[in-house]
Amino acid sequence: MPLKHYLLTPGPTPVPERVALAMAHPIPHHRAPAFEALFAEVRDGLKWLYDTKSDVLTFACSGTGAMEGSIVNFFKPGDEIVTVNGGKFGERWGKIGKAYGLTVHELKVEWGKAVDPAAVEKALRDHPTARAVCVQASESSTGVAHPVREIAQITGRGEALCIVDAVSALGAMPLPMDEWGIDVLVTGSQKALMLPPGLAFGAASEKAWKRNETATLPRFYFDWKREREMQRKNQTAWTPSISLLMGLAEVIRWLRELTLPAVYERHERLARASRAAMTAIGCKLYAERPVVSLTTVWAPEGIDSDKLVKTLKTKYGVTLVGGQDAAKGKIFRIAHLGYFDDLDIVVAVAAIERALADLGYKAKPFGTGVGAAMAAMGE
Amino acid sequence: MPLKHYLLTPGPTPVPERVALAMAHPIPHHRAPAFEALFAEVRDGLKWLYDTKSDVLTFACSGTGAMEGSIVNFFKPGDEIVTVNGGKFGERWGKIGKAYGLTVHELKVEWGKAVDPAAVEKALRDHPTARAVCVQASESSTGVAHPVREIAQITGRGEALCIVDAVSALGAMPLPMDEWGIDVLVTGSQKALMLPPGLAFGAASEKAWKRNETATLPRFYFDWKREREMQRKNQTAWTPSISLLMGLAEVIRWLRELTLPAVYERHERLARASRAAMTAIGCKLYAERPVVSLTTVWAPEGIDSDKLVKTLKTKYGVTLVGGQDAAKGKIFRIAHLGYFDDLDIVVAVAAIERALADLGYKAKPFGTGVGAAMAAMGE
Repeated sequence: MPLKHYLLTPGPTPVPERVALAMAHPIPHHRAPAFEALFAEVRDGLKWLYDTKSDVLTFACSGTGAMEGSIVNFFKPGDEIVTVNGGKFGERWGKIGKAYGLTVHELKVEWGKAVDPAAVEKALRDHPTARAVCVQASESSTGVAHPVREIAQITGRGEALCIVDAVSALGAMPLPMDEWGIDVLVTGSQKALMLPPGLAFGAASEKAWKRNETATLPRFYFDWKREREMQRKNQTAWTPSISLLMGLAEVIRWLRELTLPAVYERHERLARASRAAMTAIGCKLYAERPVVSLTTVWAPEGIDSDKLVKTLKTKYGVTLVGGQDAAKGKIFRIAHLGYFDDLDIVVAVAAIERALADLGYKAKPFGTGVGAAMAAMGE
Repeated sequence: MPLKHYLLTPGPTPVPERVALAMAHPIPHHRAPAFEALFAEVRDGLKWLYDTKSDVLTFACSGTGAMEGSIVNFFKPGDEIVTVNGGKFGERWGKIGKAYGLTVHELKVEWGKAVDPAAVEKALRDHPTARAVCVQASESSTGVAHPVREIAQITGRGEALCIVDAVSALGAMPLPMDEWGIDVLVTGSQKALMLPPGLAFGAASEKAWKRNETATLPRFYFDWKREREMQRKNQTAWTPSISLLMGLAEVIRWLRELTLPAVYERHERLARASRAAMTAIGCKLYAERPVVSLTTVWAPEGIDSDKLVKTLKTKYGVTLVGGQDAAKGKIFRIAHLGYFDDLDIVVAVAAIERALADLGYKAKPFGTGVGAAMAAMGE
């Protein structure tokens, strides 16, 4: 029998059957009332997810397009920004900023660690004219949750905007935009929102919209002001990704049925179980301030994590991801965001136990990790 | 019984069942071999569709994103471009160019007419340092086919690039990029490629890639050079729209089975039938040099075309589109690109005959248009 396949990665994440089927329906025309009703429902749901009174705008692009939008709509050439670079996605802020002629002050953070809010405060003291702090709520290359709430408190006392990439965080953990004072919050479809990639979202606070009035960086496809005008009429400036929006409406209906507290609790339970399992089999956790969306783990001494990932894939049909850049070959990442349940973690842990044994590592009897995960689930 | 719905618009166009089902399958991870095999197949198919040796790049965005890419990757601030503005999409070239600080020379063309190649030649004589001519192969707001082949011959003699938006043309008519000497050719997924919106494509000639080396307009998400490097490795720089790419692979397989000459012939047959039908019921055609993808028609004297479109929708379940901007209320547009067959045109014409009668216009006995369409199909 060919291997059954298990997609257990932190994006794309598995698409629930009811969502896949919703997207297989015939699509409406995007300038027709049927689309407008669908989009009104989606817009309302996104505000609920973001816990904000601001408009949450939808874009046909990947998360990187929304990150670019969160830069080009709020600054002038030469503006200074502080970027938190503690991983592959944190590094991206700097690349975008430089591509558009901003002066980027990078706050480097060791991979696997979270930024210290005091370091953000110091960066803003060192660069008092900095116009923003850009940070990840979940740095998926390291599995770290940066202290977004504390950073927003700091920026809230001055002129800098707090710009947050929550691509692998929003929908997995509470990120109440208005209450925390986040100024720009972006996310994507293929993580906790349980959709294929291709949609991204962004919202801006009043402080950010005020900044938009004087922002002169060039933009067209990612012009948020034009989008806001159109989307308030339940339309989009450019042709929207209609089938993904049909799926998103179904996702939002389902999340409302589940309720957000229950969704967040499930993410926490799966994170707890994964960490208990890895610790039980003698693996060290990688992230110091781990995000609820994924668990990053050091491969045992002498084992190349890329080889582990390959064994998982070819022998057990389990797709996990290894480390990128600084963490390449050293870590592996267990995802638990979106359409994941307890037994997915059992599958992941069992496959990891077996694959590690295949590679010569077997510190504990088989089932040690799975048992620890199951015990942690019941807590 | 609720109305059955017929999507008969020039984008989005109907998605074939086999394509919708292909997209409902579980998605692979985009950094995994299964994705790379899929993407290699898609890349090969796109080169075949474009009839080019150049790489055809794929982007997660709508067609407008590919239009923006075809500007920001090839110019410096202050560069002059000539844009052909004979409709809503031609106008967009100028808006994008201005947003990025180019000097735009607009060649205005009356709505419903095609640009005269001699006018393009004159514009290039008047602006000898112009770096490009931007034009639509199919201006879907008017239903006009601009003479792209002749324009490419003109630009081929000098330094200007020939940049062509073929969003509603590619796949419906031959556009052999290399043979015609088109320098930049962009298209989208939701027209003749029979997919939902959300993917766009772009290819550049050697002349254009040479220009890319000195192009300094800012870009990040739409950086074609970075994409070319990645896509040659069957990867994308940013997370791709995986489910739509799964659909595209299925579309390409189907187009190969059908063969392109047969696909183009079908588009011509449907265009011929639509035009015969409208003429037979006494309606005047709008476009002087009509594109094969759609038929644009003047509403009869005294009839508001928006009212006609509304009647078609609410009473007959048929979604057609009316006119935009200068043509608003005056014209309606019958689409025949993508997943359309003879009987779709019969449906469209029959509904138009009935809706026109509802609005007080009935010059000919019922069936006159349908009969003329059927006769033209058999020619």
